[in-house]
This record gives sequence, structure tokens and C-alpha cells, in this order.
Amino acid sequence: MRSVAGAEAHVNFASDNAAGAHPNIMAALQEEAAKSGMPYGGDETTQGLETDLSRCFGREVWSFPVTTGSAANALALAVVTPPYGAVYCHQDSHINVDECGAPEFFTHGAKLICLPGDAGKLTPETLSLALARQRRGTVHAVQPAVVSLTQATEWGTVYTPEEVRALATLAHAHGLRVHMDGARFANAVAALGVSPAALTWEAGVDMLSFGATKNGALAAEAVIFFDSALVRDFAFRRKRSGQLLSKLRFISAQLRAYLQDDLWLTLAAHANLMAARLATGLARLPGVTLACPVEINEVFVHLPSPLVTRLRQAGFVFYDWPGDPLPFVRLVTAFNTPEASVDHFIEVAAR
Amino acid sequence: MRSVAGAEAHVNFASDNAAGAHPNIMAALQEEAAKSGMPYGGDETTQGLETDLSRCFGREVWSFPVTTGSAANALALAVVTPPYGAVYCHQDSHINVDECGAPEFFTHGAKLICLPGDAGKLTPETLSLALARQRRGTVHAVQPAVVSLTQATEWGTVYTPEEVRALATLAHAHGLRVHMDGARFANAVAALGVSPAALTWEAGVDMLSFGATKNGALAAEAVIFFDSALVRDFAFRRKRSGQLLSKLRFISAQLRAYLQDDLWLTLAAHANLMAARLATGLARLPGVTLACPVEINEVFVHLPSPLVTRLRQAGFVFYDWPGDPLPFVRLVTAFNTPEASVDHFIEVAAR
Amino acid sequence: MRSVAGAEAHVNFASDNAAGAHPNIMAALQEEAAKSGMPYGGDETTQGLETDLSRCFGREVWSFPVTTGSAANALALAVVTPPYGAVYCHQDSHINVDECGAPEFFTHGAKLICLPGDAGKLTPETLSLALARQRRGTVHAVQPAVVSLTQATEWGTVYTPEEVRALATLAHAHGLRVHMDGARFANAVAALGVSPAALTWEAGVDMLSFGATKNGALAAEAVIFFDSALVRDFAFRRKRSGQLLSKLRFISAQLRAYLQDDLWLTLAAHANLMAARLATGLARLPGVTLACPVEINEVFVHLPSPLVTRLRQAGFVFYDWPGDPLPFVRLVTAFNTPEASVDHFIEVAAR
Amino acid sequence: MRSVAGAEAHVNFASDNAAGAHPNIMAALQEEAAKSGMPYGGDETTQGLETDLSRCFGREVWSFPVTTGSAANALALAVVTPPYGAVYCHQDSHINVDECGAPEFFTHGAKLICLPGDAGKLTPETLSLALARQRRGTVHAVQPAVVSLTQATEWGTVYTPEEVRALATLAHAHGLRVHMDGARFANAVAALGVSPAALTWEAGVDMLSFGATKNGALAAEAVIFFDSALVRDFAFRRKRSGQLLSKLRFISAQLRAYLQDDLWLTLAAHANLMAARLATGLARLPGVTLACPVEINEVFVHLPSPLVTRLRQAGFVFYDWPGDPLPFVRLVTAFNTPEASVDHFIEVAAR
Repeated sequence: MRSVAGAEAHVNFASDNAAGAHPNIMAALQEEAAKSGMPYGGDETTQGLETDLSRCFGREVWSFPVTTGSAANALALAVVTPPYGAVYCHQDSHINVDECGAPEFFTHGAKLICLPGDAGKLTPETLSLALARQRRGTVHAVQPAVVSLTQATEWGTVYTPEEVRALATLAHAHGLRVHMDGARFANAVAALGVSPAALTWEAGVDMLSFGATKNGALAAEAVIFFDSALVRDFAFRRKRSGQLLSKLRFISAQLRAYLQDDLWLTLAAHANLMAARLATGLARLPGVTLACPVEINEVFVHLPSPLVTRLRQAGFVFYDWPGDPLPFVRLVTAFNTPEASVDHFIEVAAR
Repeated sequence: MRSVAGAEAHVNFASDNAAGAHPNIMAALQEEAAKSGMPYGGDETTQGLETDLSRCFGREVWSFPVTTGSAANALALAVVTPPYGAVYCHQDSHINVDECGAPEFFTHGAKLICLPGDAGKLTPETLSLALARQRRGTVHAVQPAVVSLTQATEWGTVYTPEEVRALATLAHAHGLRVHMDGARFANAVAALGVSPAALTWEAGVDMLSFGATKNGALAAEAVIFFDSALVRDFAFRRKRSGQLLSKLRFISAQLRAYLQDDLWLTLAAHANLMAARLATGLARLPGVTLACPVEINEVFVHLPSPLVTRLRQAGFVFYDWPGDPLPFVRLVTAFNTPEASVDHFIEVAAR
Repeated sequence: MRSVAGAEAHVNFASDNAAGAHPNIMAALQEEAAKSGMPYGGDETTQGLETDLSRCFGREVWSFPVTTGSAANALALAVVTPPYGAVYCHQDSHINVDECGAPEFFTHGAKLICLPGDAGKLTPETLSLALARQRRGTVHAVQPAVVSLTQATEWGTVYTPEEVRALATLAHAHGLRVHMDGARFANAVAALGVSPAALTWEAGVDMLSFGATKNGALAAEAVIFFDSALVRDFAFRRKRSGQLLSKLRFISAQLRAYLQDDLWLTLAAHANLMAARLATGLARLPGVTLACPVEINEVFVHLPSPLVTRLRQAGFVFYDWPGDPLPFVRLVTAFNTPEASVDHFIEVAAR
Repeated sequence: MRSVAGAEAHVNFASDNAAGAHPNIMAALQEEAAKSGMPYGGDETTQGLETDLSRCFGREVWSFPVTTGSAANALALAVVTPPYGAVYCHQDSHINVDECGAPEFFTHGAKLICLPGDAGKLTPETLSLALARQRRGTVHAVQPAVVSLTQATEWGTVYTPEEVRALATLAHAHGLRVHMDGARFANAVAALGVSPAALTWEAGVDMLSFGATKNGALAAEAVIFFDSALVRDFAFRRKRSGQLLSKLRFISAQLRAYLQDDLWLTLAAHANLMAARLATGLARLPGVTLACPVEINEVFVHLPSPLVTRLRQAGFVFYDWPGDPLPFVRLVTAFNTPEASVDHFIEVAAR
């Protein structure tokens, strides 16, 4: 592990998880640190979190805090996918390309069936085709178990409630469950201006990986179930995977502060706005092409090669992203990205 | 999950992980929260931690922060244990009885071979006997891979450096690696007054689960390797198990503050002292029997049944512990247990 | 792999699986070889087998042929044991000591909880104690799922129907399922003179690994379910583990010939008789001690060291067996062990 | 499981594993059945097999008999693929679509990366592209471990030695191992008229699943290693998966008879010839289109719908096969398919 210059917020567009933590969340941790509490989730903060989440989603939910999005996703999928099961997902999904096989580990070897789709989104057409191909009840074939949608997607786009519903309805009709990877769920809700309920259980989502880490928490995710029948053996699987913190209340406290007064949506709206500003500024420049609509806090954009060099020389940090035929860079804004940084980025790019 | 009264520090003797977090550790987190940093451990804090740990242990070490002791143990064991391997451990060890099969999960089904031993300690005699019984090279039998020692043990006792060395020498002679579960490593070091090196690599330990959570951190453990050949694929296994935090520096920061100015030993020494005071006070009472010597911050003690009732009625919280023929209770002190609480406990007990 | 002299039947007391195959079973294979048949069990022979087994057990059963006892046991256990589950078994059981961790592999890391017991037999007392110790519903502990009995046991003894019933009743009362490892089930039935039903479902057994390989087949075992609710996903697990033969009818044909006209019981009775004759002959000699009653086709016996040497010099093949304080040898007779061989063995021993 | 009419050889074109077993193989089993032999492969027949295979392949090989192709493939892959590894294969490969996730089970959750390719064949171009995409050394991504080629392919085509070499060279250059799924290896060798060596180790193949079951055996496959370094822990994995037969010599005996006097190539050549005859006859009919060249014993062909109906009404048995835009049927000939059956099929089709 080597030191990387340019990690400072004002030049860092590498990832929203390069950001620090929000003061309100830190304050909640300070408060918790001064108290004792029963371990392993037997504390009042964790209980309060379930109440808060139920209020947020407009119905009773069952929630389990964990520390990473990979763990949240893999644990949720493991509850509904037998080892000989199949998980349907986008070919660019985080669970497929960025978790080093965590879903396969937690499910004991289930198969991810990866589907294409513009802008990182599954469509009922590709899903329907894939489901038709899979041989249900035949011992030679893995058995369809769940569809996993990423909201917002890995390409910075969002599913509308109608799009979620169409996919969920199809999945349910085939006996599959619906999981939503919500590492950037806040950004999606903020972008769409709909209720958390509308994007999840009202549209047919059975389980949500509710992420806070990328949006101002230290490390805080929750697996949220909208159907108590699915909770089953989740608690055992969480413990067994080393994801049940003894001082779990420190995760719960982050999540409670995150929900308090809609902090999560305020932070996500800011990050989204900064990305929109960045995209608008860049799109005006010659030779610059957006890979897809900028709907949340990520900009996938083709920049002419000299421009990429110039920006990096100016200290900006961001990742190359594979594209075909044109290569892209990915620019990610965060809950605390200064407007001035965005403007400075555009200014350097425009020189 | 129900609320539990009596979680407050001054009456809570249930566990050291019921305690909050130390102010120095919180301050380090606050500082980190105000900064950006490259994700997934590519940050300066995490790099600094490896340097700090190397200094602490008096030699170069390779370290990997994770969030729970179960994860630390299971990941370390998985690196050296094939699926058809065997892990030798005490029958009362945390990895055997308290992790819901985490070692089996992470190793993909290795077998824990559980040995008896007074006061939670393995002896060269029982280990030697067990190793002699196992059929090396025979495909019918799982193959010995590693010995796991808990330091301090689950019964609140410690291995001396000589005891560790005897076991490690035996293990190495049989081609096994040596793992130390150090969830309460600080308490052991403080109790013995020896160097961290003397208790680990100098005595033959290959890998250490270095715990901070029970001793003042929020959630911070590190797997420490003393042999670079063992590091191998640890990073992939950590990622795959959802234990690589995107904002890993928040774990690293806790550990750095924990090591700073020997805070970890100061805190452990306090907890140990409180347990000693508690044990001394209780041992004077009629009908009270200690299960084993009180060497760290845990007191396993038989109390007459009416006394147990009276203490609980007074608001004290602690767990029953299985014993034969006499049942025990477990009393655990923490880094912040007030002396007055201990005295109050003894006073109530003596009424 | 080195050549081993003395593999011939008349001097081989190493194992019943050193024997060849019975002519009737070979004839059935010949007949099958001359025919075509739908693959993967979609053939008439496999269907007929289920009917034959149902007749044999006096009720409807659900059966799945596989090729080894290890696979039969591990697959059966995997159907009822979650990865965080516990299997209760004797510490000397084949699933614990002789399958290189197959149960852990197929269950994805469940834990075998090994109990002591004279003559290889579990007792309600030890099982009851072990179940009482295990913390049901606590996420820290693996959860009891099934009890596995070996009939006949690894020490050549048998459970009576009453003994099976007592254990099964206890297991069921605690919500566990009951598996029987019947690698030598035929020997047990022949020894006890009771019906297959009496030893299994009538006594509370839920699943049986019905072995034929050790008693005259080439390679033929069947997992038999007495409760259709348990069949669940067995077929997927069998396929996934490479245990669904494309020409499955060749296993089924062996099993049908094995059942035909009670061939299985005739063969087992012969093997049992030879062991009894051997034991009787040896027991008369000075310095000879039987480890436990000889109830089937295995004799565990302490022989004076010079006697062991003399027998091996005479060409007899058999295994040493661990014992405490006295070492044993294991002598196994087979469906085709000649009476003359037994008498010759005794004669050499008596010289 | 329901009875299926038309399983008889003269009308069965469903699969080569619907066929019976060859008399020479049955004779070898008869001979073996009359003998005793040390269990678990410690017998002379199994040792002789390794010698026979070494002779067949023109060099020393290390061989392990198992009972199914799924087990052979999955075990071979598991030896070289860590749980966080990737297996590159054709999207239509048997390991991907027909083994219910066996490779994932045996590797503990490795990922199959599925590539397109005409006629079931991988090309250096698609493989090269896929390897370039995978991020080596990055903990977020599974790590490339092995390429698996099917010879002959699932579409009845063959790789030439040069094609194998090109893929193997590419794989080795990237540090991957090369596995060959040879369920129909005999058909490929017979079709190409080259030596077994030329198609395997001389072309860079590291491990071969050598199948005999589809070509006249009852149930006999062998995993063959051309590099002793890869053998590693195979024996433990085989045992642990229930694939080590106690009477292993009955598998070995089949394989020895199969190799004797090139029986395997004679049988495969016949099956290939029958398929060629079938294809030639059908290709002349109107509306009939071959999916790809008929190179071994499988014919993938589009037949007009009324023709399909007519053939089935005449009693012929064969499977529908997915195709786009035209649906296919698959016709498979076997080692014992009568020429008259082929002619009768063509005759009915031509009516």
C-alpha cells in the first residue's frame, strides 16, 4: 500500500468513499462512546434504529447493521439463494465485478447470471429472456433464486419506481426474490424525489442493502427486509461471517444520525448537484462526451487524452474507466465536495 | 432484541464490550473524519499503522485491520488451513463455542479438534497426544494445519512466554502453524509485564489476532503476521468476506490511537486491577469459590444462589457461566470500570 | 500407491471392501449392459429400485443411489443441516474420523459435535447432556440439526430397535432429525433378526445411508428418506457434487440384485458368522482380549505382539487399531470369506 | 422420474450415455469381481492403470479415477483455482450449464467467466480480451486461474492441436493453467487422427478429464495430470467429495479394458461414423440445416417441425436444443449405434 497524493477533498474525485464523515454522525458516535450498552445489538440504539428505519420506509421493516456494502449484499443474497441457486444481475454490477466473489462465498457457490443493459440497467426484456432460458426443476441447471438491482447503478443512473416494479413483478412471477443494492440509495432517492417506500417495497423490492458509508458515515450499512419471512437465519449468517459487531451500537448510532432530519437526503442532494454542475461544465468542452446521463453523483465521461493529463498534473485525482470504443474517466462527487472544487476542475479543463 | 436495563458502566459486569470508547480513540476518529483519504487502505493512516505495529512488536510485521475478532480469527486460520485441514484448539475456545462456526465458514469446512485443559489452557501433553493420533498423509483424515491459542484465555488466565514457546515448538515440529487469538492480548501483556514480542513471535507465534474492541476501541482488530510467507492471499480473502472497509482508515486510526503512548496497556492494566480487586473482595465471603486464578479482567466465581439474586436485584448485570459441579458467574471489568463500582459490588455482596 | 501382497480373499481380513462382487450382482450388471436406458435415473431400473426398497422397508420410501458411503452420509446430512448447524455423532464415527471432512464439505461448514460412548454407541445420557449444553437460538452458537447413528457401529456393535428409538425420540423432542449411517446396515439387520423397518423408521430414523458396497456390490449405496419433506433439494445437491451418474441404472441394478430374494441378508449373515467363529476361536487363546462384543462381521481384539507378527508372517492382512491401554487389531470378514480361512487363521494363531 | 419409451439403442439418439456397456469392459469387471484387492486404490489394477495411461499419452502421467465427468472436471479445477479465482470457459460449456454449479461447489465459490465463440469453441481473441479486462492483483476482482476447454466441444466440434496450443500458450503467458474437459476426448482423438499426446500435453494442456462413460464404460472417468506439481492435494479433495471408491479397482478395471488394444478409439470411430452418416443423409433433405460441422458423434440440426413430429411418432428419441433464430434438435450416436438405425432414421425423415 503506497501513499497517494491528492487525497484531499478539494481535488479528490476518485470516489465518494474517499470523503471523511459528517459532523452529525461523529457527534452521535461521541455520545455513544460515553455510554455503556449491551453488546451484539442488545442495546437501545440498535432497537431505535429499527424504529427509525420503519418510519423512514413507511412500514415495519427488519434491519441488521453491518460494516460494508459487500457484506450487506452477500448476506442478503445468501438468505434467499441456495448453493445451487442463481442470482440475476447486471454484468457491470458491483456484486459481479467488485466484490472478489463475495456473493459466491456467502452463498456457498451460487452462480451470478450476468445480463447486459444500457447505462448499467437491467430491462424486463433481457431478464425475461434469461429466465426463459434457465431450466427450472432440472438438476443439471442452477435454479433461479433472486434478481439483484443496483440503485443507483454502477453507471450513475437510476431506476424509476416504474422500472423497478416492472422488473420486480417479472421476478416474482417466476418465483424469484428481489434484492436492491443501495450503496448509493440516498443518491437515487434524492435524484428521483420519491419516497424510499416508492423505490423499494411498494415497487416489489424484498430486501435492501441500505448504504450510508459513501454518503457521510464512517462505516455503516444495513440489510433491510420488507418481508419478515425472509429474515430467517440472517442473524446466524451475520455472526458466522464476522459481521456482528460486539459494539454494534456504534454502527446503529451512525445510521440513526444519518436518518435524523433527513440528513441522508440533504447530503446526497448536494453530491448529486455537484456532479450535475461538473457534467454541465465539462459537456461544453470540445471532444468531451458523457457516457450516459448524469443522474446522481457520478460522471462517466470521455475526455481527450491531453486534458486528462493536464487535470492530473493539476493535482486532481480520478480513475480511468473502461469504455468501448472510447475510454472514460469516472468523476465522483461526495457529500462534502466544495462547489469551488468543481468549478476549479472545470476551469482547469477549459484552459 | 429487547432493551436490557443495567447497561450502565457502573453496574455492568457482563462484558468488556459493553463499555464505550476511550476519548483518545474518539479524538483520532474526529481528526480522521475531517480529512479525505484514499479508500480500501490506500491511505496514510493505514500505512502508519503498520509502522506503529512494527515498532510495538520490535520487528517488521504485516497487518490487516478488520472489524471483529471473529473475522480476524477466521481469516487468519483460513490462510493456513486448507478445507481438509484441522485446527487444534481448546474445547472452550471462542473460535469453537462462540463464533457460530466462523472458522468453518472461512476455511470452507476445516475441522476444529478440541482439546481439554485446565483454566482454558492447552498443554503440550494434550496437544502432543492429539497430534500423534491424527493420521498424517492419509486421505481418510483431515490434515493438521494450525494450533490456535487464546491469550488471555476464555477463563481469564494467561500463558507465560515459556508456555507459548513450548506449544509453538511442538506445533512447528509437526509442521503446524501457530495462531494466537488476542481478543484480550492487551490484558495478557499487561498482566505478565512482558513485551508484546516475548508473547508472540519470539515464542513462536506466526499470526496474531490483535484485539482493541474490548479494551476501549469502537470496533478495531488487526490480523498481524510475523512471517511474510503467510500473508499470501489474505487481502483477497478479507475483501471477499466483506471485511475490507472502504474507509479502512477509520479502523486504522483507532488502532494508532490505541498504541499511542501505550494507551492500550494503561487501559488493560486498569481493567486487570479492577478484576483483581473484585476477586479479592469476593474471595473473602463465605461460600464463594473462584473457578481459577484471576489473571486479567475476568472473574469466574461461584457465588451462593441468594447472593446472585441479591446482586441482580441491586442492578448489577453479569452472566451465568456453566461449571461442573458448581455453577459460576462471570464478572468482567473494563478499561473504564470505576473503582467505586467494584467496591459497591463487593459491599452489596457482603451484606 | 504401492502394491500390497495378501489381498487375496483367503488371507485378507483388512476390510470387507477388499472383497470382490457377488455373482448375482455381476449378472444384473451384465443384463443392464446389454440394454439402453435413459440417463440420469430416468430409467426403469432406477424406478424399480424405489419400489423394491419400499417393499423392503414396508412403506413408501424415497431413494437416491450414489457411489460411496461418504457421499451418501454427507449428502443426507447436508439436506437437514444448515452451514451454521451441528451434527451430533460418536467421536469414533466414520463421518468424523474417516471421511476427510466430507460432512463439513457438503454442509458448507457445519460442526460435528462428537460424543463419547462405549462400544461405539451413543447413549441418551450423553446426547441429552450435549443438547442441554448447546445454546439454541443464540447467534454465537451453531444450532443442533441432526443426530447421526452408525448401524452397525464402527466397533462392530449394534443398536437394538429400542436403543435407536430412545435416541431418536430424544432427538426429535429437541427438533433434530435422525440419520443412520448404514454402511453395514445389512450386518446389523442380520445380527438382530429384526425387520429393516424396525431398525429405521419404526424407531424414528428419518434418513438412512443404505450400503451395499461392503457386502457384495461393486459400488452401490442409496440414500433413503422415510419422510418426503426431507427430500427437498437432494437431487440438486447430488448432481452438484458429481454423484449423479449418467448411467445411474448401473448402480440401481446392483441394488436390485442385492435385495432380490434377500441376498443382502444372506451375505451379511455369512460374514457375521465368520466373525463370530473367528472371535470364538481367538478368545480361547492366552493373552487375547476382545475390545467389545462381536455382533457383526468385525472383531476388535488385543493379540499379544508376537502373535500379531506370526500371523502377518503367515500372510494374513489386517489393520492395527488404536486402543487404550491395549492396542487392538481389527479383523473383518466378508460376504465371501471362506470358513477354511477363518479356521486357518485360528490355527496359526494357536500354534 | 417417469419411464421413457424408446430407450432402446436402435431408436435412441438422445445421448451416448443412454447406451449400455461394452462386452470387453464387462469382462474386465467380471474378472475383477472374482478377486480381492486392497481398497481405496491400493490395488494392482489401479496401479496398472497409471502405467497404461502413461503409455497411452507417451509420457509419465498422474491419474485419479472417479465416477462422473462432473466430479472429474470440478476436482481438477479445484486443485488450481482458489475460492477467489476465475475459470475461463465457453458460455455453452458443460461445466457452466450442465453441472448444477459443481465447479463452484468444489472450488468453494470461484467464478466462471463465460466467453462466446462459434461452434462451442474459445478463440485466442476472446480469451485475450477477457484476460486483459480482468484486474490482476486487485483485491476487488477474482483472479484468473485456469482456462477450461471442452474437447470435443458441446457443439460436437473439435479443437485442432494448433488451436489448443494457441489457447494454452496464451493462458500460460498469463499465468493460468489449462484444463481439458474430455468427456468425449476419444471422439476428438478419433476424429482428428492425432495422438492423445498431441491434443493434450504437447499442446500445453495441464490436466485432462478423461471420459470413458459416454463411450462404452459403465461409469469411469479419470483426472489425468501432466504436471506432478499440480497433483498437490487432489487425493484429499477426492476423498472429501465422496469420490474415492473403496473398491476403486472396479473403475480402474473399466479404464484398462477401455484402453486395451485401442478399444476406446475403435468405439469412438464407430460413433463418429454413424453421426457423419446421419448428417449426410439428413443434409440432403429440404428445410434441413446443420448448426455446425459434424465432427464427432453429435449432430445439431434444424429439422422442419412436421419432420420432428413424424420422427418422434416413429419412436425415435432425441432432445430439442436451443438455437437462434432456428431451433435445433440434437442427435447423438453411440459406440453401439447400429448402422441400420441410422439408415432407418434417414428413411423416416425422407418420407
